[in-house]
Amino acid sequence: MSENCIFCKIISGDIPSFKVFENDKVFAFLDINPLSKGHTVVIPKTHCERLEDLPEEYSSAIGSALPKIAKAVITGTGALDWNLLQNNGKSAGQEVPHLHFHIIPREKSDGLGYRWKPTKLDMEKGKTLCEEIKQSLEN
Amino acid sequence: MSENCIFCKIISGDIPSFKVFENDKVFAFLDINPLSKGHTVVIPKTHCERLEDLPEEYSSAIGSALPKIAKAVITGTGALDWNLLQNNGKSAGQEVPHLHFHIIPREKSDGLGYRWKPTKLDMEKGKTLCEEIKQSLEN
Repeated sequence: MSENCIFCKIISGDIPSFKVFENDKVFAFLDINPLSKGHTVVIPKTHCERLEDLPEEYSSAIGSALPKIAKAVITGTGALDWNLLQNNGKSAGQEVPHLHFHIIPREKSDGLGYRWKPTKLDMEKGKTLCEEIKQSLEN
Repeated sequence: MSENCIFCKIISGDIPSFKVFENDKVFAFLDINPLSKGHTVVIPKTHCERLEDLPEEYSSAIGSALPKIAKAVITGTGALDWNLLQNNGKSAGQEVPHLHFHIIPREKSDGLGYRWKPTKLDMEKGKTLCEEIKQSLEN
């Protein structure tokens, strides 16, 4: 737990929240500034800023919990579709430095979603990049 | 495995890909239409359309693998920040009906990211919605 972290204070109950789920490693609550009805925030019960630094016991626990929480959110709201979004770092839109997943219920033409500007993968560059990523995995 | 699924064919090797990671339950490869350098797709090695329907053994395995894969992607590309995105259903932007997570490396002012149009949670409606979601979780 981190003393000045708003999400750590939500976990401890020092800041109230609309809690929808909690187990020993995962906590989920309604976003106070929702993008859509049922917008839910899912966090690990350990202070960690980014997903790449989250200990495996917490990342597997969140992986296990997300389908159940999402099913309840879409059942509870009546939304059919939804996005899972998680931002790491300021350039990626992260505002609170305690890693969090957004479950965002979606409707057709709601004006939300990710800005999709695809390019085409250069085969030679792709091959090199693939090797670089695999090497980083092995180290 | 589903016969006509492009991602099942990538897992089986019938369609080639730039594979960056594989274990018994998870497969990851470079997106052929990247939003940014290193854009990587992470999928379960079982055919399933949406995250809320993914069996727990696969969702926990993906949860475990994501931090490692993401760390290698950002190390391999030199990107600092990144988004994790997963779309469920057409209204949410899902194009291939085999559930997949996008790891999208980000740079400042790259024009990507989620369209953020926050509202304010009505406390009374939040209370009701919270109860509805919790009831759905218990059923």
